[in-house]
Amino acid sequence: MSSNPTGSQAGLKGVVAGRTAICTVGEDGDNLHYRGYSIYDLTEKACFEEVAHLLIWGTLPNKQQLKNYQNKLKSLRGIPPALANCLEKMPGSAHPMDVLRTTCSLLGVLEPEVEGKRAEDIADRLLAIFPSALLYWYHYHQNGHKIEVNIAAETTAAHFLTLLHGPRIRQHSDLAEMMEKTLDISLILYAEHEFNASTFAARVCTGTKSDFYSAVTAAIGTLRGPLHGGANEAAMYLISQFNSVEEAQTRIKEMLEKKELIMGFGHRVYKKCDPRSDVIKAQSKILAEFSGDKTIYPVSEKIESMMWEEKKLFPNLDFYSASAYHFCGIPTFMFTPLFVMSRITGWAAHIIEQRKDNKLIRPTAEYIGPSARPLTDISVR
Amino acid sequence: MSSNPTGSQAGLKGVVAGRTAICTVGEDGDNLHYRGYSIYDLTEKACFEEVAHLLIWGTLPNKQQLKNYQNKLKSLRGIPPALANCLEKMPGSAHPMDVLRTTCSLLGVLEPEVEGKRAEDIADRLLAIFPSALLYWYHYHQNGHKIEVNIAAETTAAHFLTLLHGPRIRQHSDLAEMMEKTLDISLILYAEHEFNASTFAARVCTGTKSDFYSAVTAAIGTLRGPLHGGANEAAMYLISQFNSVEEAQTRIKEMLEKKELIMGFGHRVYKKCDPRSDVIKAQSKILAEFSGDKTIYPVSEKIESMMWEEKKLFPNLDFYSASAYHFCGIPTFMFTPLFVMSRITGWAAHIIEQRKDNKLIRPTAEYIGPSARPLTDISVR
Repeated sequence: MSSNPTGSQAGLKGVVAGRTAICTVGEDGDNLHYRGYSIYDLTEKACFEEVAHLLIWGTLPNKQQLKNYQNKLKSLRGIPPALANCLEKMPGSAHPMDVLRTTCSLLGVLEPEVEGKRAEDIADRLLAIFPSALLYWYHYHQNGHKIEVNIAAETTAAHFLTLLHGPRIRQHSDLAEMMEKTLDISLILYAEHEFNASTFAARVCTGTKSDFYSAVTAAIGTLRGPLHGGANEAAMYLISQFNSVEEAQTRIKEMLEKKELIMGFGHRVYKKCDPRSDVIKAQSKILAEFSGDKTIYPVSEKIESMMWEEKKLFPNLDFYSASAYHFCGIPTFMFTPLFVMSRITGWAAHIIEQRKDNKLIRPTAEYIGPSARPLTDISVR
Repeated sequence: MSSNPTGSQAGLKGVVAGRTAICTVGEDGDNLHYRGYSIYDLTEKACFEEVAHLLIWGTLPNKQQLKNYQNKLKSLRGIPPALANCLEKMPGSAHPMDVLRTTCSLLGVLEPEVEGKRAEDIADRLLAIFPSALLYWYHYHQNGHKIEVNIAAETTAAHFLTLLHGPRIRQHSDLAEMMEKTLDISLILYAEHEFNASTFAARVCTGTKSDFYSAVTAAIGTLRGPLHGGANEAAMYLISQFNSVEEAQTRIKEMLEKKELIMGFGHRVYKKCDPRSDVIKAQSKILAEFSGDKTIYPVSEKIESMMWEEKKLFPNLDFYSASAYHFCGIPTFMFTPLFVMSRITGWAAHIIEQRKDNKLIRPTAEYIGPSARPLTDISVR
């Protein structure tokens, strides 16, 4: 074991920290599978709730099981009064990831993981309630309305979008359908990604035999960082700065010359491409065409080609998720919360897996501080 | 790099995950130092606030700086109304670690880490408010009182004990002084321990450039587990079962024969002894003698000697902390929260250190799941 953490082990890069049967992430970028199923197949032929069932419960549902599962999730959307009260007391200017992190932590107080409760059921509860909590908080502070979160929407995507836009979005049925499809696909793509930082945080937490909510709370807090979940938001802020392809070209060139970080490109694990990018890019393109966009999508493509030409960096999932979400009318600050609403399924799978063969995760450190020294009495310091 | 996580790397045991200048934890158990200062010197000659200053701000304070620091902490004890409201809405039967985890997360909503705010100042705020929040919640649900948390107590130990027992404890000045000394020493001993699981969780979270509160919230949730912070509580539940040394002897023998886990013994890193144990054991003995205890302390010593004779396992910090806290009149379910009130200093030091030379902490996994397989259409599953 090398003791040089600035070498290959800095950030545990390439270090095998455990075994998993949930997901493969290959360097070549052509083999992202959830429990053996390719993400290309899943996004083409399955809906997000099928994937959620696959990750949380371990199996793909049949038609009846899917119907039952969607009904179960619908029944779990309600916000307990103490949580509603807390969401109302949070400022409207709060960071939405702080809102979700606190929602999860407080739900762990109100509906604790007691003996006999199944972790899978808590996962379903969190999956169902996150859109409710975020949008309850949002509308309360934006418009002063206490929205009804128990609506008829069948899917997580429809639940989120209908709570966001209101039922009027359904009047534009083509657009609503396209948005729901895009969000559904995006939720599948964001659902699981092996030992990424937030999932690893959840496993470290679970390793002490802590409860399910603590692990998810840790994961949300970890996902919050701009080097992880925050990247799609950062990409959107970048893209939306430019009013034309030409402007983007000039400014990106300047940014690259100044070695400024451009978010949404490259990946810790993938070396050639991110297999998820093309899938979400296709959705972004469909919505761009439908909405008559002449800026956001072309600017995105320009940035993509420049990053490849100049830096040989490929777009990761976050980059085209930004414009896809934008075309769905989703405010940028909700992008990372959507990541939570999807990744809760992968986190749950990893927490449950960690528990089955648990071992405390406790690495060691190389000490580079002062040698042992005498303690001077406070009177003579 | 071995790819066998069931071998020496299971749980990252012995894997160097980074560099630190904060703490040395030696296998031999004779060299626990915070920034070069021995814990024997610190517990003998310094108070907890000096150690907190050393860990959070990097230096030992002189007399005037210590006075200023204690005054600063006193000024940071107040509970914002939205947090008080939330603590009132939590059930009295909640897990106190869930209460502290949510306190930290919600404080991150109410007093976010905005540009220009110093991490050290947030650490001080959390250090000062944790006793307030826990005991506000406790007394509100136990006695229906909204206690005043801004009291004159100079130290963290005095603040906690006076909020817990009420000012009447001060009428027994010898006892109050002994309890405060014991708790102060305990807070020093629990303050920092290198890359333990909760600290490592905080560093994983910080690695994504997330905020200070997210990292501490992750750490609290990780500490909550019985394999980490919960051990002193488990030790107390064990010790308090026995009404005599004889009973303890008989039952512990039975438990060992049945291979039941006895908490508070052995350590992932220490191989010969835990250097902190003798320090807290001495305090436990002083309080046992003062209080005329004839059971808890002798039972603890009996368990210690049996564990050594039968299993060659030494007591770790948690074991005698249990009886020491018990003699301070602290309810057992507050033992792990006290760990939080101390370790926040070590967590803060590590979060600040991680930020100075940050790298995303993202290991990899060995895949042991199903091979790539076709997705069957839902209609034929």
